[in-house]
Amino acid sequence: MKLNILGCYSATPRTFTNPTSQVLEINNHVFLIDCGEGTQVELRRHKIKFNRIKHIFISHLHGDHFFGLVGLISTMRLLTRETDLHIHAPKGLKEVVTLQMKLANSWTNYNLIFHELNSKTSELIFEDSKVEVHTIPLDHRVYTNGFLFKEKEGERKLDIAAVENANIDVAYYRKLKQGFDVENNDGKLIKNETVTSSPEKPKSYAFCSDTAYKEDIVPIIKDVDVLYHESTFLEQHAHLAPKTKHSTAKEAGSIAKQANVGTLLLGHYSTRYDDLNVFKTEAKEHFKNVELADDGKVFEF
Amino acid sequence: MKLNILGCYSATPRTFTNPTSQVLEINNHVFLIDCGEGTQVELRRHKIKFNRIKHIFISHLHGDHFFGLVGLISTMRLLTRETDLHIHAPKGLKEVVTLQMKLANSWTNYNLIFHELNSKTSELIFEDSKVEVHTIPLDHRVYTNGFLFKEKEGERKLDIAAVENANIDVAYYRKLKQGFDVENNDGKLIKNETVTSSPEKPKSYAFCSDTAYKEDIVPIIKDVDVLYHESTFLEQHAHLAPKTKHSTAKEAGSIAKQANVGTLLLGHYSTRYDDLNVFKTEAKEHFKNVELADDGKVFEF
Repeated sequence: MKLNILGCYSATPRTFTNPTSQVLEINNHVFLIDCGEGTQVELRRHKIKFNRIKHIFISHLHGDHFFGLVGLISTMRLLTRETDLHIHAPKGLKEVVTLQMKLANSWTNYNLIFHELNSKTSELIFEDSKVEVHTIPLDHRVYTNGFLFKEKEGERKLDIAAVENANIDVAYYRKLKQGFDVENNDGKLIKNETVTSSPEKPKSYAFCSDTAYKEDIVPIIKDVDVLYHESTFLEQHAHLAPKTKHSTAKEAGSIAKQANVGTLLLGHYSTRYDDLNVFKTEAKEHFKNVELADDGKVFEF
Repeated sequence: MKLNILGCYSATPRTFTNPTSQVLEINNHVFLIDCGEGTQVELRRHKIKFNRIKHIFISHLHGDHFFGLVGLISTMRLLTRETDLHIHAPKGLKEVVTLQMKLANSWTNYNLIFHELNSKTSELIFEDSKVEVHTIPLDHRVYTNGFLFKEKEGERKLDIAAVENANIDVAYYRKLKQGFDVENNDGKLIKNETVTSSPEKPKSYAFCSDTAYKEDIVPIIKDVDVLYHESTFLEQHAHLAPKTKHSTAKEAGSIAKQANVGTLLLGHYSTRYDDLNVFKTEAKEHFKNVELADDGKVFEF
């Protein structure tokens, strides 16, 4: 699982910081999460091929989370994309994009498929044989979702030497991988765990931005490997958090602890601060394993 | 007159080139012309104060000319702007901006005043005591205008020594500057040209992008000091120009010659080319004084 931080600052793009956008590579999927202004340029800088992105997830319709989307959609047409593109976003985004297309006498050569969200409870919004994506309802000034990306339990791994030694026909390998006991060529029942080992633990990632402190999300993100939780403010401006429906670094730490996550990744920093290390220190009051997101950083988990 | 090229390439933003946007500083006005994605970051890079921009002119509603606008408008709010902002743009832009504001539960603290354009003939769209701005109807795939910025004729300059020598009362200086003859303290008529000199020649700038070759614009831009004319293509791709309603460098040179402009500035280059110098060479077949626009360049005329 690889996470590319294209941008992780709140509010306005600047010469040296970008608004929210990140790319999660998980099980051969390349998921784009949020798409602030400048995202397409950051994708180029990270050498991420536009064509590999088949799903885009937009948390909410504040500009610093989606103003780069219509440009990316247009660029994909210019690059002669033919692959379907799915956009999972709050209701209203389709209207914004289609209005701009119409005014430009433009179109896409590929299928642009909007999945508009309006549920207030967590729902499964994407699933294939290996991965599933759920919404995480958040508490912000407009309708907002975080997203939970979960690998499914993989197949058991064959211990080839043991399998051959047990004289099992190749035809049964599939069933072994699925966890079944099988009969060998001598008619003897072979217990699955004697010839296979457990699959790798499935990875999971939760993206939670933007949101006020919200304990309701804890059951949804319980035990995830990595939690990206917004931390717009430091303690000195904690009074601004509930008013603007953002969180402090300390609150992000508290959520991480309650949810028993593996790693807490902080981001969505207010641009008023110069030293990110203070975010880490304050989050650590509640939770030990804290990392700082920053533009251009790539995390492998 | 100072022209800041924030971006001058066609189509998609890249890590090293920006879509169209430029800032014209003329007679204390700071006019923003077009606003492709990334413009607000380029304004910061050029250290142009957002608050000094009171008028934005948008040529047409293709993304590479306006996808940065809604972000800039939002940023101006975050920067607590209070100054009125006038946007001169094709009909439709107001709907795009207000829809995005509505979805974000957002607003502006300053007056955002749209002047929607739909005339097919040149019209005066801004005027004060020193400057006027006219549209230049262009021929592109959607409704498009170029813009002609013209200083007005200034006041005549007093030759203070001559004025005092002629024994003219201070109360008449205003009339002298306006070009009138006046009576001196001895009741004698003083010819204006004996005590004043001509004002500086008013400067003018024409922005023409995007457009197919269009001789109709020649009378409108006749004798301008500087003409920015799009040159999307080189001769090797001249066949693409009429189809996409763009121009070649050579055609830009021809328009410059017919209009007898001072300097021709080329731009809106297709991103397929690596060497801009060929644009200059080809334009020079028709017109001698050619300059190449490029991102980050600043021209003083």
